[in-house]
Amino acid sequence: MHVHVNAAVSADGKLSTRRREQIAISGDDDFARVDRLRASVDGVVVGVGTVLADDPSLVRHDESHRVGAAPPARIVADSNCRTPVDAAILEGEPRTYVLTSAAAPEDRRSALEAAGASVRVTGSERVDLSRAFEALRTDGIDRLLVEGGGELIFSLFEDELVDELTVFVGPTIIGGRDAPTLVDGDGFLEAFPELELVDVERIDDGVLLTWRP
Amino acid sequence: MHVHVNAAVSADGKLSTRRREQIAISGDDDFARVDRLRASVDGVVVGVGTVLADDPSLVRHDESHRVGAAPPARIVADSNCRTPVDAAILEGEPRTYVLTSAAAPEDRRSALEAAGASVRVTGSERVDLSRAFEALRTDGIDRLLVEGGGELIFSLFEDELVDELTVFVGPTIIGGRDAPTLVDGDGFLEAFPELELVDVERIDDGVLLTWRP
Repeated sequence: MHVHVNAAVSADGKLSTRRREQIAISGDDDFARVDRLRASVDGVVVGVGTVLADDPSLVRHDESHRVGAAPPARIVADSNCRTPVDAAILEGEPRTYVLTSAAAPEDRRSALEAAGASVRVTGSERVDLSRAFEALRTDGIDRLLVEGGGELIFSLFEDELVDELTVFVGPTIIGGRDAPTLVDGDGFLEAFPELELVDVERIDDGVLLTWRP
Repeated sequence: MHVHVNAAVSADGKLSTRRREQIAISGDDDFARVDRLRASVDGVVVGVGTVLADDPSLVRHDESHRVGAAPPARIVADSNCRTPVDAAILEGEPRTYVLTSAAAPEDRRSALEAAGASVRVTGSERVDLSRAFEALRTDGIDRLLVEGGGELIFSLFEDELVDELTVFVGPTIIGGRDAPTLVDGDGFLEAFPELELVDVERIDDGVLLTWRP
């Protein structure tokens, strides 16, 4: 399994405003790069916080880069099955996986399955991301693109599951002590994940940083 | 007045851990750069949050770059005079300015003056940074280096006082929804400050980004 985390942040490291409203941070060149990235993976992953805040469909309309290939599966990390049954991520194709834990209420699990989701249960209180990702391999999903949010990305670093991190840093200040950042969660107090800066590229009006653990 | 904001952040945009403990983010080359920067200004500014969390002296021991020149004045933005009278920033030379507001208790102001600070009052509830900086010019202070924290830096962007922003982005993940970031405060919801990326330079194991509004 290869896990690539990709995000666009403001010059001060924010994913969105304190109201979780996303603003345009990158430009056409970065959008094209992300399209190519999405076309190269088997699944696109977001956390339930992103589903609740943004209601993304994760359906890509520009599939020009992977003619003939299946679009990437849609995957939500959602320990308690809080994804609404009418969420855009559950509508139509391609298949949507909900990665949840044994703590999720049974009726919520059933409701999501009835809404068409493939629910996968790992972990007792929180989804065990390592085991959940491993289980996805039996469905032919070997390459994942993680698109946020900061709570999920923190869990991935905590579980040492990140293989690559690309961050577009854009020419805007969002600010806000309560605004979502690239890596939220509880945060590290020791054993901070160390990265290697493998590439720096100026694109659009910002810069793309490529890091590897 | 020229206001230069400089900071080192983790790859996820944090200044320190959620406990406000600073960790080593940059290396020798960036330290040398910051030393040169400090030697080029008339005053170094921090917010009172940084004084309370880190108790910096802001006394520079390496003055080799400005032989014969006076060391930069030390300046605290502190709307309510919360700087402790035994703070390291008040000890010895060079002179320390406390920029405060009319809302600061009279006894706190007197105590800081008795401890050697030059107290400057602007603004009713919060320090009026624009007027306070203007007042510093009468003392020959024309170039300021702001070293944090995120609350002060937000106020500076809010008041459109930032002339240059340099950010060293280092190869570490700190994480934490409550960890201090480069620009905290309430955050912007509209009229987001726009920057121009004027330079990108790889130094140490990270990258130095230079932005101008």
